[in-house]
Amino acid sequence: IIVALGLTVEKLLGQTLPLAPNLINFNSTEGEKLLLQSKARQDYFPLSIHFLTQENPAWCGVASIVMVLNALGISAPEDPVHKPYHAFTQTNLFDNPKTSQIITAEQVSRQGMTLQQLGQLLESYSLKVKVYYGSEVSLEQFRQLVMKNLEQPNNYVIVNYLRSTLHQERGGHISPIAAYNKETDRFLILDVARYKYPPVWVSASELWQAIRTLDQASNKSRGFVLVNSP
Amino acid sequence: IIVALGLTVEKLLGQTLPLAPNLINFNSTEGEKLLLQSKARQDYFPLSIHFLTQENPAWCGVASIVMVLNALGISAPEDPVHKPYHAFTQTNLFDNPKTSQIITAEQVSRQGMTLQQLGQLLESYSLKVKVYYGSEVSLEQFRQLVMKNLEQPNNYVIVNYLRSTLHQERGGHISPIAAYNKETDRFLILDVARYKYPPVWVSASELWQAIRTLDQASNKSRGFVLVNSP
Ligand SMILES: [Ca+2]
Ligand SMILES: [Ca+2]
Ligand SMILES: [Ca+2]
Ligand SMILES: [Ca+2]
Repeated sequence: IIVALGLTVEKLLGQTLPLAPNLINFNSTEGEKLLLQSKARQDYFPLSIHFLTQENPAWCGVASIVMVLNALGISAPEDPVHKPYHAFTQTNLFDNPKTSQIITAEQVSRQGMTLQQLGQLLESYSLKVKVYYGSEVSLEQFRQLVMKNLEQPNNYVIVNYLRSTLHQERGGHISPIAAYNKETDRFLILDVARYKYPPVWVSASELWQAIRTLDQASNKSRGFVLVNSP
Repeated sequence: IIVALGLTVEKLLGQTLPLAPNLINFNSTEGEKLLLQSKARQDYFPLSIHFLTQENPAWCGVASIVMVLNALGISAPEDPVHKPYHAFTQTNLFDNPKTSQIITAEQVSRQGMTLQQLGQLLESYSLKVKVYYGSEVSLEQFRQLVMKNLEQPNNYVIVNYLRSTLHQERGGHISPIAAYNKETDRFLILDVARYKYPPVWVSASELWQAIRTLDQASNKSRGFVLVNSP
């Protein structure tokens, strides 16, 4: 999740990093077409209107959780910046004592979160969560489980993957998946590091490879979570 | 832009405030359909992937400008939180001396910004900006000018309107417009007060009425700006 980079300023003038040819930029004619063609995009609109930039280099999991909680529309705590309105934010997420018992905001800032902690943090908001390790699911199971969810409203998928498998810079990362395009067999990741990469369409097999990588913090593979309302 | 409210907690459990029947919630089957049907939605995808929540109750104009600058993909300053990446943020927007000469972040926090200042802030980033006062355009001119822009990529519309004309709570507000639906004669506003309202489809005539209202800070009417790359 935290990555040391040796990038030159030149590379950054277009704001985000270039994509390798294996990925399709969502912010392109082709990228839009894949969404319009998709039959598994129930989660796209609720997620996109709550799309966030992670507030700190290790908070990809935090931003992903906040997007899903707001997309689910469950009862939210007060947003202290915008009283009297209620919304989940990357700051008030940890105000729930059940949440900060799992891991604190400070700990996440230092070390990110594991797949297991991602599941537990979502459970601390009384959601039904199923955690899948990439090492334990076949490509076909992965594709079907995620596609089914993306065909249904009111439940969501968050994926924990290794960026370098997708030819991105570079470490472990977490973001929501918003849609599946059957014709190209690709998933749309709403990447919460918006300063770094646009949302991308990635092939199911490459994303599956990227969730089968070892997370050294847990000594288990990465993976994904399916999140349902209580 | 700053509004005093007497809301009860009950109203807030669904996170955002209820919409009057004149508005169509974008986060609904009907709302999605209007986008899919739209032939003037070139700005929707670039804006939506940069959708932001205003960071402070008076920063609707700030968030709107940052969305448009990032959507245009112009050369951006370093994001201090996410070095070495470059992106416009609601904080670094005012680091440009030309920008803070027009109005400072602190002044915007106290009093918001007028339509004229909105145009000048965009111009401080070397963009071509045209400011239209609602009092000086007919409904048909308004509809055509905005629709034309929404049919074209790489230019954007930001609108400054009175919420209460749309039966929303309540004062002056600023947000980008992302699409036009001809069949229903409605515009899609990506409301940057995401803690308060979802994006909405509003009829062209109601939005036109809402930009013809008097802004007491400028003693002129509200209106809209068209923004083009240099
Ligand atoms: Ca919903
Ligand atoms: Ca779903
Ligand atoms: Ca662009
Ligand atoms: Ca345009």
